[in-house]
Amino acid sequence: MRDLYHEQLDAISDRLVEMTRLVSSAMSRATTALLDADLKLAEIVIEADVAVDEVQRALEESALQLMARQQPVAGDLRTIVASLRMSADLERMGDLAAHIARVARRRYPASVVPPELRSTILQMGHVAERIVTKAGSVIARKDVEVALELPHDDDEMDKLHRELYRTILSPDWKYGVETAVDVSLCGRYYERYADHAVSAANLVVFLVTGDWAAGETEPVG
Amino acid sequence: MRDLYHEQLDAISDRLVEMTRLVSSAMSRATTALLDADLKLAEIVIEADVAVDEVQRALEESALQLMARQQPVAGDLRTIVASLRMSADLERMGDLAAHIARVARRRYPASVVPPELRSTILQMGHVAERIVTKAGSVIARKDVEVALELPHDDDEMDKLHRELYRTILSPDWKYGVETAVDVSLCGRYYERYADHAVSAANLVVFLVTGDWAAGETEPVG
Repeated sequence: MRDLYHEQLDAISDRLVEMTRLVSSAMSRATTALLDADLKLAEIVIEADVAVDEVQRALEESALQLMARQQPVAGDLRTIVASLRMSADLERMGDLAAHIARVARRRYPASVVPPELRSTILQMGHVAERIVTKAGSVIARKDVEVALELPHDDDEMDKLHRELYRTILSPDWKYGVETAVDVSLCGRYYERYADHAVSAANLVVFLVTGDWAAGETEPVG
Repeated sequence: MRDLYHEQLDAISDRLVEMTRLVSSAMSRATTALLDADLKLAEIVIEADVAVDEVQRALEESALQLMARQQPVAGDLRTIVASLRMSADLERMGDLAAHIARVARRRYPASVVPPELRSTILQMGHVAERIVTKAGSVIARKDVEVALELPHDDDEMDKLHRELYRTILSPDWKYGVETAVDVSLCGRYYERYADHAVSAANLVVFLVTGDWAAGETEPVG
């Protein structure tokens, strides 16, 4: 049987996993809203971001209470502090999904994504969902094996991001400056989203393997 | 006379202030590198970012040791956890300054900033430096009064950011898609830089006034 202390530690981990689910769903819907110029869906994503912030706040509060009342040993302390960092990553991922929804909303009823880029954006959305889902498994099961796949997925995101820039900057681009700027910003949001997911998963790896305070990834752009 | 425990707490705060100095200098140089197409300066900024990361790492290590060994009371614990969040904000600000330097380097020997936007970019650089310098005072002296000025400075940054977009998206824009994309990315980096500085300063306010876990700002873009 687990004691209260370890139950509370587990509850923090559960909240992180819940956050991965929320921001995965947000990104999936934001991608659809962007591709289909769906105003209603975009607004749902923007409004739903409050829920992510609330889970993060609750997580922070329990983490602080746990640290203050239970005086955890060094190892558990690292876990709790790392959880706070992961929650900040996940909260930011929610913001980034909402940013994509905001671009869709701003350009409605026009569509932001020209036909040449639909497939790239769709793939960026899929890679984003795959990465955050894997990050969720890594957090839930302390699964270092799955975490090792993430740099590969992140490379795929970077590749798609470069592909997007190549299309925008090619002499054939005929959609003007505003669309170029909007699409490049969305590209950056997808890439940062993936970076934060990788960073959260890396923190689990460093907790398990003992190498602390790395786990930052920095994109090409 | 202060005891070792409080000396260690102060040392964490000193490291945060040192980080504000480093990222302020980085942003100042990055702006110059961008405006003058100065490759050498851009490379200095990019290389110097390692120093910011090192201070953050040292800060995290001392924070964890302090928490593990001294078992701080609830109030001090909040201060330490908030310091970790601030250090993450400041570390990110270093990244953003380096991103601006990378844009300058990528386009060298061409200049990224067309004449029409030199003044806007220069002002964004100045507002960024002003905000981070004020954030440094807020952290060093727990100065809530100065913190109250920051939303105003941040509004000024948002205004400049909107001005930049208006210029890029006006029918008179004659610098093509690549420059539009580069300039808009730089605009976003300045704006995020300011957001992180405001967020760090807000954490001090919440520590002093007791309202925890807010202190997030979200930009217009």
